Amino acid sequence: MKTEKEKMIAGEMYLSGDLDLVKERRHARKLVRAYNATTEEDIHERKQILGELLGSGGHTAFMEPTIRFDYGYNIHVGKRFFANFDCTILDVCEVRIGDNCMFGPSVKLFTATHPLLPDERNSGQEYGKPITIGDNVWIGGGAIVNPGVTIGHNVVVGSGSVVTKDVPDNVVIGGNPAKIIKKIDY
Amino acid sequence: MKTEKEKMIAGEMYLSGDLDLVKERRHARKLVRAYNATTEEDIHERKQILGELLGSGGHTAFMEPTIRFDYGYNIHVGKRFFANFDCTILDVCEVRIGDNCMFGPSVKLFTATHPLLPDERNSGQEYGKPITIGDNVWIGGGAIVNPGVTIGHNVVVGSGSVVTKDVPDNVVIGGNPAKIIKKIDY
Amino acid sequence: MKTEKEKMIAGEMYLSGDLDLVKERRHARKLVRAYNATTEEDIHERKQILGELLGSGGHTAFMEPTIRFDYGYNIHVGKRFFANFDCTILDVCEVRIGDNCMFGPSVKLFTATHPLLPDERNSGQEYGKPITIGDNVWIGGGAIVNPGVTIGHNVVVGSGSVVTKDVPDNVVIGGNPAKIIKKIDY
Repeated sequence: MKTEKEKMIAGEMYLSGDLDLVKERRHARKLVRAYNATTEEDIHERKQILGELLGSGGHTAFMEPTIRFDYGYNIHVGKRFFANFDCTILDVCEVRIGDNCMFGPSVKLFTATHPLLPDERNSGQEYGKPITIGDNVWIGGGAIVNPGVTIGHNVVVGSGSVVTKDVPDNVVIGGNPAKIIKKIDY
Repeated sequence: MKTEKEKMIAGEMYLSGDLDLVKERRHARKLVRAYNATTEEDIHERKQILGELLGSGGHTAFMEPTIRFDYGYNIHVGKRFFANFDCTILDVCEVRIGDNCMFGPSVKLFTATHPLLPDERNSGQEYGKPITIGDNVWIGGGAIVNPGVTIGHNVVVGSGSVVTKDVPDNVVIGGNPAKIIKKIDY
Repeated sequence: MKTEKEKMIAGEMYLSGDLDLVKERRHARKLVRAYNATTEEDIHERKQILGELLGSGGHTAFMEPTIRFDYGYNIHVGKRFFANFDCTILDVCEVRIGDNCMFGPSVKLFTATHPLLPDERNSGQEYGKPITIGDNVWIGGGAIVNPGVTIGHNVVVGSGSVVTKDVPDNVVIGGNPAKIIKKIDY
């Protein structure tokens, strides 16, 4: 039988109040708080904490505090990942980010979602969908990426976009919901 | 004659620089700061502070820090209220939230507003309109609810929505301005 | 030959990793952190730090912490500037804000931008465009102003707007991208 954690990562309905998951979120919050308390001088400590927090790629990533994660270990970032102030990632499912990606301030990635029917939603059960982001993607400040979305390579996401659907390679998108604004001739 | 506080809560033009209101905002900010400095371990302290801050329902609510309120006492939440990281509520007028409501990260409720004419706006006078949210409402991350809005029961507000008008029961809304995307067969 | 800082302020491509710019950002972050650690009681300290941080007008401005800036010195605010919680200003180019302006919570002004082509973007070179805001402008909570935008006098920007184009005097705008909703008869 699957544990709640296994169900969660598999995108199945799970109980977020599961004691093992509560313990893991508390662990992540301690590390996140330690990270958010660092300063520009604490270069080594920042690399160390982010390396411990993220599933992979944290040692070479650069994220301006404040950061917010659920678990951290479901977040995998490629080479030279940069996120400006106040990045929030709800990582109940995997978040895979390619190489050379940069996020503006207050970018939010949400893998967490809930049932639409109130009785199901109030049961305490919830689920998630993974987010995948290609190489060379620039996500503008204040943009939101919804559960289950895949963003292709070389995409530019305009500031304040709400990305609700998959995005092909080589395009600029913008708006709420985000739509293709133009192709990038590459 | 009405005090500035009485005018404020009644939705009439009032002076936010009124000394009694300044004092109350300072009191709220102290409690908010104390709350934001708590950790996952401080379960009792969190309940106590939120119980003291909110108009009602705070003792059984769960809000992930950071929270931001103007006064706190105008906020009334129902049973099992949950708000994820970085909830901001400008509560110059009443905010009434039903049972079983959950907010994603960075949800913002604004009861505060200002006159459209610059001379009136610059006078230092401002006003607010109450916000009412039904039972079993899920507000997605980054959504904004504008002054005066009433949201019905069982509503799902998509991430990043800007809710500018009243919303009936049993619908999913999304966009900026938010529109009905579909009905929830309940 | 121009320094990287001179290129940055002129809106030309520059290297943000330039050591002089890194030093200036670190200096700004120290002051920003000191500001964000102040309380309502520290009226004098807040004025002093904001006066030191901003290019001009900081001594008479009022900004609720948390604030976020890149450099600070490119930000010029007019008389009686007020920004509510969590204002983020990426000021690689000049931000000029007129008299009597007020920002709701989580307003974000971005002068920083990047090339659309991935190879250029990954080179580490970037650039900015100035933002200009007239007198008596009220920007609603959660709104974003994009690089290069000029907003006229007496404008009201609806909450959650994403302002991508210039805005004339005396209008209310809203939406993503923001459009004129109505004229203000003034």
